[in-house]
Amino acid sequence: MISAMSQQPPSRGQRRKLRTRMALIGAAQEIFAERGDLEVSIQQITEAADVGFGTFYNYFSSKAELLDAAIGEALEAHAAWLENLLSDVDDPAEVFASSMRLTGRLVRTRPRIARVLMSGRGALLAAPYGHAPHARRDIEAAIAAGRFVTEDIEVALACTAGCLIASMQLCTVAPEASAEDITDQTVLNVLRMFGMEDTEARRIVTLPLPADEPPSAAI
Amino acid sequence: MISAMSQQPPSRGQRRKLRTRMALIGAAQEIFAERGDLEVSIQQITEAADVGFGTFYNYFSSKAELLDAAIGEALEAHAAWLENLLSDVDDPAEVFASSMRLTGRLVRTRPRIARVLMSGRGALLAAPYGHAPHARRDIEAAIAAGRFVTEDIEVALACTAGCLIASMQLCTVAPEASAEDITDQTVLNVLRMFGMEDTEARRIVTLPLPADEPPSAAI
Repeated sequence: MISAMSQQPPSRGQRRKLRTRMALIGAAQEIFAERGDLEVSIQQITEAADVGFGTFYNYFSSKAELLDAAIGEALEAHAAWLENLLSDVDDPAEVFASSMRLTGRLVRTRPRIARVLMSGRGALLAAPYGHAPHARRDIEAAIAAGRFVTEDIEVALACTAGCLIASMQLCTVAPEASAEDITDQTVLNVLRMFGMEDTEARRIVTLPLPADEPPSAAI
Repeated sequence: MISAMSQQPPSRGQRRKLRTRMALIGAAQEIFAERGDLEVSIQQITEAADVGFGTFYNYFSSKAELLDAAIGEALEAHAAWLENLLSDVDDPAEVFASSMRLTGRLVRTRPRIARVLMSGRGALLAAPYGHAPHARRDIEAAIAAGRFVTEDIEVALACTAGCLIASMQLCTVAPEASAEDITDQTVLNVLRMFGMEDTEARRIVTLPLPADEPPSAAI
């Protein structure tokens, strides 16, 4: 974000602005994680963030805008964690599959962020940050590498997101079910959707996953 | 519903009860279609249904229960229409595919019921009426006929619903896009997910669809 704004190191004023912005976002994340909404007053948010009340509108035009930023930030952190974790993997089909397998497991490992992904705010799957652009880039790379075939990448992306979210909901309503099994079966289905041959698809969804923990976040 | 309750023709009292119940459901459907919620007083609902205020709790324990019934009734009517329309088709894979193709098109032909299908109340996909049991039965028949392969029917059903709803959302955010193209591409993806060979899957998603109009309903 910073490097996109400027090639120069951020000035002291810029650093302070970024800190205030992140304090507001952090407070919103905690409130949202605790309550499931942001139906509190702006004063309660600025108090939780320990910033002046009047400051709020220098950063966000509304609570909805702050909530979108808070959710986007949490999703982006998770997507960046996935990307870093799988940076040594060469096969884009494997990056795609392992990212989905790790994301589905969030239902048990990080239920709060899983809830955000499944929520109506999952319209954020269409947003220019978080999971959608990562999934799109992996799909495009897998097509270029001759690993995936699809006629329409927008529809393929929608189907991928739809399968993942529906299977996360299935895990949620069946707390005793294995999220690993449900997620891996879902990814197997999605790989078939991309025209991958069965033996190869099965190999990919049974590869060992990196054991690293997902990032802690308020949500 | 009546035949499930009793093998005898309904008595006059039973018919009257059913009429009152349907009047309440019809009123709820109209209010929900107009407003997107049922956040009105029970008195407003009973007035719209032209039944006595005190009657409400003889039929429903809460507005939420009435809303579930109203949505369930609308979905069931649509599912019954699909079933009737495709009753002459022998191939269960074709019944499954054509039902999905017609349901995706609801975004343009019946936007209100499409909205219900896409809403949070789409948890109703897990309900024992409407689309889910029809889709499950079609999938089971297609597996028995050797047309579909899947390891886990619950996951397959979740993925089917997830793909359909995500592609309906894609049609909604892109009003200029062809719902026919998006839906048919989605169904092609889902048929591949069920292990169907490409040429055959393409044939099935380009079959002519019955030209009948979907049923009119308040929602």
